[in-house]
Amino acid sequence: MSVAVGPAPVTPRTLDLNCDLGESFGVYRYGADEAVMPLVTSANVACGAHAGDPATMRTSVELAARHGVAVGAHVGLPDREGFGRRMIAVTAQQVYDLCLAQMGTLSAFTRAAGVPLAHLKLHGALYMMAMDDSELADAVCRAVRAFDAGLPVFTLPSSALAASAAAHGLEVVEEFFADRPYRDATVMMFGWTPEDLGPPAAAGDRVEAMLAAPAFASVGTVCVHSDTPDAPALLRAVRARLRRLGCDLRSSRRPMAEPAHPIGRTTP
Amino acid sequence: MSVAVGPAPVTPRTLDLNCDLGESFGVYRYGADEAVMPLVTSANVACGAHAGDPATMRTSVELAARHGVAVGAHVGLPDREGFGRRMIAVTAQQVYDLCLAQMGTLSAFTRAAGVPLAHLKLHGALYMMAMDDSELADAVCRAVRAFDAGLPVFTLPSSALAASAAAHGLEVVEEFFADRPYRDATVMMFGWTPEDLGPPAAAGDRVEAMLAAPAFASVGTVCVHSDTPDAPALLRAVRARLRRLGCDLRSSRRPMAEPAHPIGRTTP
Amino acid sequence: MSVAVGPAPVTPRTLDLNCDLGESFGVYRYGADEAVMPLVTSANVACGAHAGDPATMRTSVELAARHGVAVGAHVGLPDREGFGRRMIAVTAQQVYDLCLAQMGTLSAFTRAAGVPLAHLKLHGALYMMAMDDSELADAVCRAVRAFDAGLPVFTLPSSALAASAAAHGLEVVEEFFADRPYRDATVMMFGWTPEDLGPPAAAGDRVEAMLAAPAFASVGTVCVHSDTPDAPALLRAVRARLRRLGCDLRSSRRPMAEPAHPIGRTTP
Amino acid sequence: MSVAVGPAPVTPRTLDLNCDLGESFGVYRYGADEAVMPLVTSANVACGAHAGDPATMRTSVELAARHGVAVGAHVGLPDREGFGRRMIAVTAQQVYDLCLAQMGTLSAFTRAAGVPLAHLKLHGALYMMAMDDSELADAVCRAVRAFDAGLPVFTLPSSALAASAAAHGLEVVEEFFADRPYRDATVMMFGWTPEDLGPPAAAGDRVEAMLAAPAFASVGTVCVHSDTPDAPALLRAVRARLRRLGCDLRSSRRPMAEPAHPIGRTTP
Repeated sequence: MSVAVGPAPVTPRTLDLNCDLGESFGVYRYGADEAVMPLVTSANVACGAHAGDPATMRTSVELAARHGVAVGAHVGLPDREGFGRRMIAVTAQQVYDLCLAQMGTLSAFTRAAGVPLAHLKLHGALYMMAMDDSELADAVCRAVRAFDAGLPVFTLPSSALAASAAAHGLEVVEEFFADRPYRDATVMMFGWTPEDLGPPAAAGDRVEAMLAAPAFASVGTVCVHSDTPDAPALLRAVRARLRRLGCDLRSSRRPMAEPAHPIGRTTP
Repeated sequence: MSVAVGPAPVTPRTLDLNCDLGESFGVYRYGADEAVMPLVTSANVACGAHAGDPATMRTSVELAARHGVAVGAHVGLPDREGFGRRMIAVTAQQVYDLCLAQMGTLSAFTRAAGVPLAHLKLHGALYMMAMDDSELADAVCRAVRAFDAGLPVFTLPSSALAASAAAHGLEVVEEFFADRPYRDATVMMFGWTPEDLGPPAAAGDRVEAMLAAPAFASVGTVCVHSDTPDAPALLRAVRARLRRLGCDLRSSRRPMAEPAHPIGRTTP
Repeated sequence: MSVAVGPAPVTPRTLDLNCDLGESFGVYRYGADEAVMPLVTSANVACGAHAGDPATMRTSVELAARHGVAVGAHVGLPDREGFGRRMIAVTAQQVYDLCLAQMGTLSAFTRAAGVPLAHLKLHGALYMMAMDDSELADAVCRAVRAFDAGLPVFTLPSSALAASAAAHGLEVVEEFFADRPYRDATVMMFGWTPEDLGPPAAAGDRVEAMLAAPAFASVGTVCVHSDTPDAPALLRAVRARLRRLGCDLRSSRRPMAEPAHPIGRTTP
Repeated sequence: MSVAVGPAPVTPRTLDLNCDLGESFGVYRYGADEAVMPLVTSANVACGAHAGDPATMRTSVELAARHGVAVGAHVGLPDREGFGRRMIAVTAQQVYDLCLAQMGTLSAFTRAAGVPLAHLKLHGALYMMAMDDSELADAVCRAVRAFDAGLPVFTLPSSALAASAAAHGLEVVEEFFADRPYRDATVMMFGWTPEDLGPPAAAGDRVEAMLAAPAFASVGTVCVHSDTPDAPALLRAVRARLRRLGCDLRSSRRPMAEPAHPIGRTTP
């Protein structure tokens, strides 16, 4: 008598598919925003600190709104030269202040476009810092509460930020990166090579493994970065796999009063 | 039978007293904000483009809220080095975008402090540009409408901005500068000397002349800048004169559900 | 008896071929620097105000040095968001100061690379302002004299800057744009369309017409911008035409003790 | 028979007295630069990254030149909002680049003023980072060598930077802070209170103790910050004590061909 060995079966669930974008600045273009927007359900739009500027915020929000994509504030450290990827020894008060300022800035453009601000996601070094440092995580959550207590917070599972957001009564949406290598459920954010990542199709395997793994049982959104090489192909691979697994795609907080759209409906 | 010659009598009216402040940045202190806040009814808080930063916005809004002072967005050109005082050849679209971004940024701090954003006032070179250029004035007003159509716009009387705001159906609050010399109803914004301005007490005469002049019949708010030398003394002189003339002080859009407070009530 | 009508004959001369580059910033790439460097004799490297940053300055200078290309300071207004293309109402003192600062910054990288700073060329709005405003042009020239009185100044012919540089005893190198439309010897810097410009080959005709025209008799350098679409093709067309006309290419102040290299020698 | 108990005798030596200044920015004034300049022999002038701007560099260098004070580049992290006091996770390459850029920028103003750039001193967080991290210290020293191998480097004794500078064959000038508390020869850069520091006169005791202590035998310069409260009084106390101990004041690399001036000669 033998036991079949293979991947655990995946229970179909509804997922959000999010993407960092809106990172152009002045004359500088960055990321495949136009190509990825029809393929995601949530857009994390840079708020003018690590990247983005008023014109980019406006056009990114309008692009998202046209595609029915939810707009979140992608809050980063004030370091354009380092693109928000360099750790800066900011205080908890400074983190509170910069989160508030950046959510406010972006929300003016969502208001003008007639869509709600849908979530907060930290960027780069600030993201990593708030995963480990509970004081900074708390500052982020206090800022979210002061701005809009109904705003979901995107975060890694089992992180300081996830714990803090839960303690503050905020909605937590845990995420998994389809375009970053994982080792034993731990993401490699930096220092990976294209070989570690594999071809776009490998992202489908990565997402399926995640959906079957207990460590990721609570994940509600899958992230692909707009500046990952071949991001659109990677997103299509992820979407095809999710469809095959019977999962639907829907943002946590939809920008308009719309039903969830089944995967494939908005695929070009 | 003779006619008394003298200044025209002033009909008591209710006025707002506004002040540009919140212009500190990082380690740099600027303006007598603590001293002037108890003396005004509206504060125009810098939004991080020409001056100010997230920490300064937070503390300025909280200081205003403690004193029951209405908080407006003091929107300027993105030029810290020039303090927003240098004309920049911005397009109408850029003006729309920067107004929206800056109102949004500041509004996060008013929201956190539990007070409404009360008005918009342009700063420096952008202020002067929108007084003359109807296309830029229109861009400002479109941004205000997109953000909050109920937000009053502070402006010079008989300006392109006043005309545009009226055309857009926005509330217009015309202003007079108690701390700038006037020649035949035209303000000298730049190039004046302390001799042109006279002692703080002369500000009282200037305000009384304004209240009696037909050109200023529609003025709703009087401005004193926090970086004018002796701004607190100047404000006290203005307040004393207004009280003697039977005028009340009240912001256009009060931050809380409070009755107008008679002049002197909150004077320290 | 008839007279042959046709373009005036061109007397062979030695010309410099210059290109604006080094305009990347942080994660943002800009311009075809790698492709154009082997095709030019002078590189105008951005100095960190309108574009560029320390890393970009270093790599641009090193790239130029490897190709024997002379390095000039491409000095612009401090406006990253507007890429130095928006007029700012700077004073003559501010122009003096920013020219000095930017020449100094770039010169640290030329010194580290073992090549001299070879010239100054203004960028964007500052370029246009100094062509018309003799006070600003004078400020530029005073800065060049204070920094290095032997530094040639690149400029439009018959401009305020050309006159001021001559008055200050500076070497003037007049330029012609191979990638901008001309109308009666007046360049259209802005507002032109690709149709106005024509295909890359049309640049050859433009340069030949310039060499035959009395208005451009004193031109010493031909400019092609690295961000013009098809800049490398355009440069190759210009080089081919110059070679056919018997002209040599050489920078005004060569970075190393090298003879002028005949056109074609370094073409890939 | 008794042994006299008291401070060890101080052998008279020649010292430099250095001060961080030139940290104003735009409309913002910072530090008592005018008052301290006549009291020091070396000025560390901010180079426009953490503080300062072209106008401030020019006026600071000219002020120093008028007082015969040597001008050094005060190189800091590119973080105006944090005044260069927040640690940023910069790479060694970035440190090399920013040191080179900032030395270059300031040197344009020393060149225009006819004085040499006299030394390099790091600022704030970068100063502290280079004291401990030998890779960053090495990057600083490589930048100094590439720019001017004769430029002395100011540093804490027994630091990574002191070791690296010596290994690179650079002149090392070790410093002691007269306006910071010390505990067992270790300086408290942050988190001290005015009580820890004591009155200005206590700075005299601190300097005398330093001169007598073996740990500071190699110190060549004494630092007082221009933004320390009562910096001029503190400097006068230090100068008076040094005079009483028979020490002379002289910068490491004098800006002009002048003899060392005895303490008191230039005191107002």
